[in-house]
Amino acid sequence: MEDHIVRSYDEELKFILRRISEMGGQAERMLEQSVRALIRSDLSLAQTVVADDVLLDAAERELEERAVLTIAKRQPMARDLREIVGAIRIASDLERIGDLGKNIAKRAIAVHEFGQPLQLTRGIEHMASLAQEQLKDVLDAYAARDAERAAAVRARDEDIDSMYTSIFRELLTYMMEDPRNITACTHLLFSAKNIERIGDHATNIAETVYYIQTGQQFESERPKSDATATMVLPATVAGSNE
Amino acid sequence: MEDHIVRSYDEELKFILRRISEMGGQAERMLEQSVRALIRSDLSLAQTVVADDVLLDAAERELEERAVLTIAKRQPMARDLREIVGAIRIASDLERIGDLGKNIAKRAIAVHEFGQPLQLTRGIEHMASLAQEQLKDVLDAYAARDAERAAAVRARDEDIDSMYTSIFRELLTYMMEDPRNITACTHLLFSAKNIERIGDHATNIAETVYYIQTGQQFESERPKSDATATMVLPATVAGSNE
Repeated sequence: MEDHIVRSYDEELKFILRRISEMGGQAERMLEQSVRALIRSDLSLAQTVVADDVLLDAAERELEERAVLTIAKRQPMARDLREIVGAIRIASDLERIGDLGKNIAKRAIAVHEFGQPLQLTRGIEHMASLAQEQLKDVLDAYAARDAERAAAVRARDEDIDSMYTSIFRELLTYMMEDPRNITACTHLLFSAKNIERIGDHATNIAETVYYIQTGQQFESERPKSDATATMVLPATVAGSNE
Repeated sequence: MEDHIVRSYDEELKFILRRISEMGGQAERMLEQSVRALIRSDLSLAQTVVADDVLLDAAERELEERAVLTIAKRQPMARDLREIVGAIRIASDLERIGDLGKNIAKRAIAVHEFGQPLQLTRGIEHMASLAQEQLKDVLDAYAARDAERAAAVRARDEDIDSMYTSIFRELLTYMMEDPRNITACTHLLFSAKNIERIGDHATNIAETVYYIQTGQQFESERPKSDATATMVLPATVAGSNE
């Protein structure tokens, strides 16, 4: 870790917060672009997203180093310490959102080979727009240090989860109806799962905002996530192929 | 964050390192048990893994709080600072390994409903044993602060990735051959993906060990991961069902 010349604690904190804001903007853009690349089979856009991911990785690493040096040099306590620890956590969630966006962009390339089944991507498009709203909202809640707004984001994660459950079911049904759909649907399934996880990271950020602002963790248990892990679909749809 | 009474910097560091060692043991156990639950359809073992995950979550949160307080109070620099930042990073990877194990355990419940297709789980069993070795090795490398051994773990991640690629291909083929396999194979596919990601976390830990010991990041680029994201399988196998 190299040292940096900085003038005051306030300036160090401002630097960190500005970086989070930039990273947030980039994560939002990667999510939006990756889903657009998937839906529209836009391969050059997909490649842009894949290439951009290194920027977010580097930004996270730099932010962590700066934040740790600030803690070591300034010994912040209470609220100040929560601000900096919170920034490290949020940067980590944003970096992982970037990774998931990159993975969706890669799958756009595989799905493209099939000409995409448009009716299947509609559900994903809708789910992604929910995830984008959640991400935008939680970044606004962070900027405003608004614990209530963060709590609302956290509560809404269930909507994404239940949409994922219905897309999971729908994609499996398509696979059973026609095995030629299997490869494309598998990639769409992983893409939907990635979006569901992006929603989880937005929830993580909401919890961090709440913690920064109140010094408390959420009391209520987190809404249950990903009911599909234990989901069993009857194989009757497939019966017609026997 | 509550304060803790501690006697010396050395004791604080020892506490943190002991916690990492406990978390590592628990993550290893969760991985082993979740895969065993999946392979043998052992539902009570699956439920144990699901229930145990909260322990790892709590351990990570506590470790992070202790580590941050230690940085703020002791202002460690250079190697000492890397030790503590490294511990925070490793705890985060171990916590995520626990999450992935929990998700595999949940899928054991869904796969169980089908009576599991034994020939399909053999590949996953083999892949999981590789991931277990990687995790054990990297935790040993951490305990010994052995940068070379960490580098070897990182290089071997490719083996898990290529095994994942072949399992991905195999599972899709089974799905195409008989649509009744689709639900079970989908859960096995996600389980295999989870194991591949556990391998990635072992690689992250290897990079952290190297960083703690040398103060440097790895020079060489990380071996490429998950070739399946862009994989397209010919749908010819499915042709016989038309």
